Amino acid sequence: MSATHSTTCVIHPSATLGADALLGEGCVIGPHARIGTGCRIGHHVVIHADTVVGDHVRIDDHASLGKLPMRAANSATTKEQELPPLTIGATSIVGTGVVLYRGATIGEKVLMADLCTIRENVTIGHGTIVGRGVTVENLCSIGRYCKLESECYITAYSTLEDRVFVAPGVVTSNDNFVGRTAERFKHFKGVTIRRGGRVGAGSVLLPGVTVGEDALVAAGSVVTQDVPARTIVMGSPARPLREVPVEQLLENQGWVDA
Amino acid sequence: MSATHSTTCVIHPSATLGADALLGEGCVIGPHARIGTGCRIGHHVVIHADTVVGDHVRIDDHASLGKLPMRAANSATTKEQELPPLTIGATSIVGTGVVLYRGATIGEKVLMADLCTIRENVTIGHGTIVGRGVTVENLCSIGRYCKLESECYITAYSTLEDRVFVAPGVVTSNDNFVGRTAERFKHFKGVTIRRGGRVGAGSVLLPGVTVGEDALVAAGSVVTQDVPARTIVMGSPARPLREVPVEQLLENQGWVDA
Amino acid sequence: MSATHSTTCVIHPSATLGADALLGEGCVIGPHARIGTGCRIGHHVVIHADTVVGDHVRIDDHASLGKLPMRAANSATTKEQELPPLTIGATSIVGTGVVLYRGATIGEKVLMADLCTIRENVTIGHGTIVGRGVTVENLCSIGRYCKLESECYITAYSTLEDRVFVAPGVVTSNDNFVGRTAERFKHFKGVTIRRGGRVGAGSVLLPGVTVGEDALVAAGSVVTQDVPARTIVMGSPARPLREVPVEQLLENQGWVDA
Repeated sequence: MSATHSTTCVIHPSATLGADALLGEGCVIGPHARIGTGCRIGHHVVIHADTVVGDHVRIDDHASLGKLPMRAANSATTKEQELPPLTIGATSIVGTGVVLYRGATIGEKVLMADLCTIRENVTIGHGTIVGRGVTVENLCSIGRYCKLESECYITAYSTLEDRVFVAPGVVTSNDNFVGRTAERFKHFKGVTIRRGGRVGAGSVLLPGVTVGEDALVAAGSVVTQDVPARTIVMGSPARPLREVPVEQLLENQGWVDA
Repeated sequence: MSATHSTTCVIHPSATLGADALLGEGCVIGPHARIGTGCRIGHHVVIHADTVVGDHVRIDDHASLGKLPMRAANSATTKEQELPPLTIGATSIVGTGVVLYRGATIGEKVLMADLCTIRENVTIGHGTIVGRGVTVENLCSIGRYCKLESECYITAYSTLEDRVFVAPGVVTSNDNFVGRTAERFKHFKGVTIRRGGRVGAGSVLLPGVTVGEDALVAAGSVVTQDVPARTIVMGSPARPLREVPVEQLLENQGWVDA
Repeated sequence: MSATHSTTCVIHPSATLGADALLGEGCVIGPHARIGTGCRIGHHVVIHADTVVGDHVRIDDHASLGKLPMRAANSATTKEQELPPLTIGATSIVGTGVVLYRGATIGEKVLMADLCTIRENVTIGHGTIVGRGVTVENLCSIGRYCKLESECYITAYSTLEDRVFVAPGVVTSNDNFVGRTAERFKHFKGVTIRRGGRVGAGSVLLPGVTVGEDALVAAGSVVTQDVPARTIVMGSPARPLREVPVEQLLENQGWVDA
């Protein structure tokens, strides 16, 4: 069956819609965009030029996909550039009001909850959850099967490996010079969270810190130094408390990638 | 007078619009939705199937009401289910870009400010304010005359009784196992805030804590244990400081429910 | 060249569009709105009555401009009032899903990133960046060349002078009585950040505090008292640590206003 859409949609003639795709009212599909088979697209969704949406993706109302970066005259990190199209893997879900930039690469089975933003030059791995209202700034690499819970903030130049868990309201930062000195442009450094690292609710991670493999930052901590692997840290500034309990280690969860 | 809307709206023939209802441009009203008398609805508002909007409700631009939950393959708490329609009580106000899920029950005179999200299986009591950008996750009960200030985050499985005050940027959490062990599914536990309990700006509440009746958590605290009634706690971890001043107790405000 | 727009737009006959302005699909332009020369406006943008948009402004999808305040029966700070139109200076940028209220005055070259909200009775100075998801509540004055980074929260009645830097996730507050006593209405007091003051990631500022000129609040602090000029404070509660390094002082940046 061919795709179905109302006369209220504006679809560029060079765009392609997969079989059985279903569009809501008032959608706008730009030049050369490609929508996969069986997609379910809500109302007033905007899909900009060249975006590639995989098969069986759900996109909810008022999402805007493939947006071009904005540049402020005085922004420290965003330069003009050629960006590849936004791509979204099969069976991913895009929530209401989500904003995805051109130059992001989203894997399969990724959940992007309502009102999250994913910037340019970001990759998101297979099966990851990007929670409600989350920001992933530009130049980040997010692994497979991560959970970035509601309202956490991932600063530019960060790396999160597979199976990382970031709790609600976590804030990360990347500028130790807090907006001063020309030196700082050489030293912008996001955070690194190694495989299976976990960060508790409302914690703050300072620029450049690394949370080690399978380590755990307790809720409400302020992390000013690297966190050793398999260690729980707590407090402000966060200090080592004890080892992560064996039954909580990643290797003992019996999880299989799928 | 009958309802007024432009030809840019798409209204399902089974939907009903109350007398004097006024719709903006590009609204989409789904099957069996019922819009009350005298409602004022902005532009590009989407109201999904079966939603019931009471009389004299204001709904601002780009709001999306009655949304079906998204399910991630690896979400811990959202199961497939039959949900009753979203209902919104009379004279409530729904801000710009607000997202309300099917299965939420909103009382009368509730203010839902811009860009807030209220999930499925949530009740919000009469006269409560849900601030800008606030998230109320699924399976929460929020009482009457509460104030959930801007950008606070209410985790799933939480109970807030009447007259609760949650300041801006408060973060709550519900998983003491931080995403690990099968055990955790039995132990998810949101927060409980008893009648008149207050939580100061930027505080973090750990899973399962109870803030007692008329208690006060000072701004910037990390609450790891239950807070006794009428007690001020402060710090990280929060410890009792003194009694709440008598003139601040709920019983001395002269407030009448109305 | 005259302005270009599709038949899917609804433009009030009393609105004026500048030469070379380009509108996306489904835009709604209200009575007496004035759009400057060379503006680039996305899809489904709503511009309410009387709004004045300067020349060469970029406005992205789903933004809503010139919104009238909502009033809750029990809101403490919003009274009915006559508001002047929203005005936006030339070459400013308005991100996706942004909400700007009637009664805000935005300077030139201001960047308002995705999903930020600026309330009524607010002024924003030339060249300031308002980050993604930021809230500027009503009755605030924000200076020139400030950076309000992603997800920070500026409470009502606050004053930020020129060149202020507020890092991601900072929370400010204005009610020392936390919603109790009739006395509080006389004492609402936002925060004041003097010229060049900087506040680190995830910090909390209590009601009425002043951050002195060129002072620095370290990340994750809870500021309960005024911060002296050119001083670094840290911790919860924040205490003076040392002087701001000379090379980080505003006077040593060689910045020229432009």
